[in-house]
Amino acid sequence: MIQIYTGNGKGKTTAALGLALRAVGHGFKVIMIQFMKGKINYGELESAKLLPNFTIEQYGRPDFVNPENPDKIDIDLAKQALKRSKEVIKSQKFDMVILDEINVAISFGLINVDEVIDIIKQTPSKTELILTGRNAHPELEKYADLISEVREIKHHFQKGVSARKGIEY
Amino acid sequence: MIQIYTGNGKGKTTAALGLALRAVGHGFKVIMIQFMKGKINYGELESAKLLPNFTIEQYGRPDFVNPENPDKIDIDLAKQALKRSKEVIKSQKFDMVILDEINVAISFGLINVDEVIDIIKQTPSKTELILTGRNAHPELEKYADLISEVREIKHHFQKGVSARKGIEY
Repeated sequence: MIQIYTGNGKGKTTAALGLALRAVGHGFKVIMIQFMKGKINYGELESAKLLPNFTIEQYGRPDFVNPENPDKIDIDLAKQALKRSKEVIKSQKFDMVILDEINVAISFGLINVDEVIDIIKQTPSKTELILTGRNAHPELEKYADLISEVREIKHHFQKGVSARKGIEY
Repeated sequence: MIQIYTGNGKGKTTAALGLALRAVGHGFKVIMIQFMKGKINYGELESAKLLPNFTIEQYGRPDFVNPENPDKIDIDLAKQALKRSKEVIKSQKFDMVILDEINVAISFGLINVDEVIDIIKQTPSKTELILTGRNAHPELEKYADLISEVREIKHHFQKGVSARKGIEY
């Protein structure tokens, strides 16, 4: 099954983390491959260590990627993440594979949607594949079994509060 | 801070679980009080046991509540959950308090929105309060710092697949 969490609201990566938490509770093996994230999200990294059979791998830099003109290093890291995603799917070692922020990596042009569609096509039906990130490519819609769009109705950042440890990261 | 996850899509309770996972990774203490749920959601219950400082309490029956004419037992259990929520907030023992499906308990008339607003008003600013469930009461909006609406764009249940262990529960 293929699940996509997209939209401009808060809760996409968090929902994927919740899916991971629930799955490992049933004894499933889960991997989250994070595109465009590096040395951040300490909260989830620390928690993953506490849980059996839950691995998080980060492919990215701590800095934001420039969507207009991404650095070569950002493209290289996204391609590495994509390569790793293919390996992981092919290995069939995981019951759930989460490709976190992959939608953004596509929309920023770091990777091509066709390569992601290839991964989806290679995913065995017993594997749960989760794609997160805003601006999900419309081409992906027909391959997804579930799409949830998280819309921001109200956000305290609008009131000038910055990201908080343990909550946003 | 008060966060609300509402809407008809999949990912509300799951996002709250993800928030809990991230928070305990930072050493925070988290409790999830589940309204209208009983002896279900084994995946998250088992995972919670694996994590330090994360408690899930269920107040409900395994059966669905009839929104048109809820049983007395369902009302009683929701009131118990509400009483417990007040205690938990007052105790200040938890950095994050998740009231799971409380929006549904309000919309089904099991509890009154004014009682929930009272809880919000009693929540110290250092405590993160998360309310989940579809049909969030409009009165709650002005008290929330963040509202995410999860919209269902596509769902495999539409294709006749039933809920799966480790994924939906």
